[in-house]
Amino acid sequence: MIKPVNELSQSELAALKMELEAEYSKYVGKNLALNMARGKPAGSLLDHNMSVLETLDDPFAADGTDARNYGILEGLPEMRKFFGDVLDIDPECIIVGGNSSLTLMYDSIVRLMMFGTGGYPAWRTLPKLKFLCPSPGYDRHFAITQEFGIEMITVPMTENGPDMDVVEKLAAEDDAIKGIWCVPLYSNPQGICYSDETVARLGRMKTAAPDFKIFWDNAYGVHHIYGEVKLANIFDACNAGGNPDRVYYFFSTSKITFPGAGVAMMAASAAERKEILKRMGIQTIGSDKLNQLRTLRVLKDAATLKKHMAELADILRPKFDIVLETLDAELRAGGYASWITPRGGYFVSLDTMPGCAKKTLELAKNAGVTMTGAGATFPYKRDPADSNIRIAPTYPTDDELQTAMKLFCVCVKLVAVKKLCGEF
Amino acid sequence: MIKPVNELSQSELAALKMELEAEYSKYVGKNLALNMARGKPAGSLLDHNMSVLETLDDPFAADGTDARNYGILEGLPEMRKFFGDVLDIDPECIIVGGNSSLTLMYDSIVRLMMFGTGGYPAWRTLPKLKFLCPSPGYDRHFAITQEFGIEMITVPMTENGPDMDVVEKLAAEDDAIKGIWCVPLYSNPQGICYSDETVARLGRMKTAAPDFKIFWDNAYGVHHIYGEVKLANIFDACNAGGNPDRVYYFFSTSKITFPGAGVAMMAASAAERKEILKRMGIQTIGSDKLNQLRTLRVLKDAATLKKHMAELADILRPKFDIVLETLDAELRAGGYASWITPRGGYFVSLDTMPGCAKKTLELAKNAGVTMTGAGATFPYKRDPADSNIRIAPTYPTDDELQTAMKLFCVCVKLVAVKKLCGEF
Repeated sequence: MIKPVNELSQSELAALKMELEAEYSKYVGKNLALNMARGKPAGSLLDHNMSVLETLDDPFAADGTDARNYGILEGLPEMRKFFGDVLDIDPECIIVGGNSSLTLMYDSIVRLMMFGTGGYPAWRTLPKLKFLCPSPGYDRHFAITQEFGIEMITVPMTENGPDMDVVEKLAAEDDAIKGIWCVPLYSNPQGICYSDETVARLGRMKTAAPDFKIFWDNAYGVHHIYGEVKLANIFDACNAGGNPDRVYYFFSTSKITFPGAGVAMMAASAAERKEILKRMGIQTIGSDKLNQLRTLRVLKDAATLKKHMAELADILRPKFDIVLETLDAELRAGGYASWITPRGGYFVSLDTMPGCAKKTLELAKNAGVTMTGAGATFPYKRDPADSNIRIAPTYPTDDELQTAMKLFCVCVKLVAVKKLCGEF
Repeated sequence: MIKPVNELSQSELAALKMELEAEYSKYVGKNLALNMARGKPAGSLLDHNMSVLETLDDPFAADGTDARNYGILEGLPEMRKFFGDVLDIDPECIIVGGNSSLTLMYDSIVRLMMFGTGGYPAWRTLPKLKFLCPSPGYDRHFAITQEFGIEMITVPMTENGPDMDVVEKLAAEDDAIKGIWCVPLYSNPQGICYSDETVARLGRMKTAAPDFKIFWDNAYGVHHIYGEVKLANIFDACNAGGNPDRVYYFFSTSKITFPGAGVAMMAASAAERKEILKRMGIQTIGSDKLNQLRTLRVLKDAATLKKHMAELADILRPKFDIVLETLDAELRAGGYASWITPRGGYFVSLDTMPGCAKKTLELAKNAGVTMTGAGATFPYKRDPADSNIRIAPTYPTDDELQTAMKLFCVCVKLVAVKKLCGEF
């Protein structure tokens, strides 16, 4: 029976520390070079998708459009229908992008900054701009917000999504608050799924800013690993709440086919989409339609996609099993850290004892395991508790992951013990 | 011997008008539906490039990079080397984009507007912004400038490029003038090639704005049709002139492989490129590297590209021959219009008698031939003389083009005669 670490005496801690240091130094001797920093799929996942790269011998769309040539700004009809079927969105609300949904988000902020929308002033003309940032969250969202000088307000997460009491209060009282970042299913990094109630409240809440936007980045919308969690429809919620233009919806096949060469999309109300397409038509003649065809001829329809994702999940599940089982075996009884068990997505989020995240990741790095930097999951890269760590188990092989997770747990324990010893 | 139309008597004009009206009505009866509005390649050109769509069985770059996964913001090294070899640019100055050089231009304006560059203020913070627009020019350039509220100043074209006396005078005296649009080889629409002297003067001229930018859209840099015209190196010119950061260089394979699925690039000085990549890294994780490989495995190197372009030129040349021969046979002796004979590129530019362009294109449209709208080649779509017409011969088949050009010439003549008859 393992005693919780915070119940150990100083002499017990000292002994444990020596033991962990010895264990740690064994890993240092192994000259590891493992990277768990980003949510990159492993080669084994990519290998599963090679049929996307087969000869595209018919470059014509269903309606006869020559996909090799210019045009079709909004994307091929069959690509929009596919996304619509998969996500339960009207294809007439969808715009197909290039290979990056991040770019669609960035460009949406650009348009809001430069031109505004819905007849409201361009955001750049306003004295102050703020965004709600449920945290821990996705560092690239925060980077976009920061780049444009939009002040980020941290909102705590609950097991049902962002703390809606906080969101509603802030959005209602401050018209400088122009939007919120959401990863509603298997959130990055915690794997939290927004409850129906959360989605409904986001759709109906009062906002002081009339042009408040929900940036709904459903990056993991079909990335179920342990069974399937259903997400309520944000368009329905916004319509029911009388706020039809509130949501910009983002999705991509980056983690379905290839991260470098997927197909991204955004969706918005008819009115918003019309404005976006008008602006977008100045920026481009259209996205890569051949890649739309290439992707579609493999993913085909919602049913085929479901099967495809189940196959990818079979590759991902052992990786998540390794992470969760190692954390459980190494850290739970001793009370070294807490974490949420995700049911899908790409990450596991762990909280060390306060003040221990940075030092833990430094130790891991010195032993050859690079993980997402401490603080990255919070606005301005500042985790007030210095405790959140994003574990990205998808890139390493299972063997590498096994090693990396064992080392990582040693680091978590060693730093915790050092802290309890009063070393910092 | 045909008499010049402006030397005809009123009775000769009346007779000619009846004859042309009869000829025109024959075309109306044919129910034509031909589109010459845009610089789109014909199916025969696209068919020549189908090897790009063959199975990409090795998705790894030369250095082992997995092109399927995330990363390599600046583009694959071999793709940058290819562009560098073809355009005589240091690969370290190159950033590879997605499928659209237009997007790279638009996004460059966005960065200048939002953030500025080189330590100079963001353009959005300045009271007034202007751009030099050599005209006739490319309507999509003008659309970007207009979208961002940048005042467009028309600069006349000469046979050596923009009138440099005008450019130098304006750029030197007004610090609100922030840049110039250039299509330096086979300009859109006139097919004019910038002389060495023009390039040198652009590189060394004094500009009141310290952050003046040349937007160098070398869209037709390898699109020789009747022999090869050499373009001086704008980077060398800017370096020699002591203005190393002055140029943003754009190019793409859109009209080399597929318009919808080519590979675009931009190049800039080391300092500018560093700033651009830093900003771009917030917008995207990287462009489609699989498409870079796909494109490279067909185009291979500068020598292979040269051969490829010669083959495409063999398809394009008959189209340009049809346009030029028809204009020559139908319009030259009568003095109905003037035009420049291009040696490459995608367009032929024609000037009707003043005040006749709009009516000519309307007649053509009513007989089923859609061409680029009148005025499109000038800022704000306003051709002060209402005389410039862009002929885009690349999309129709040769037979269609033959018919369309004959009809077009009837329209040019009929409108000219009507004008001389005093009808408008």
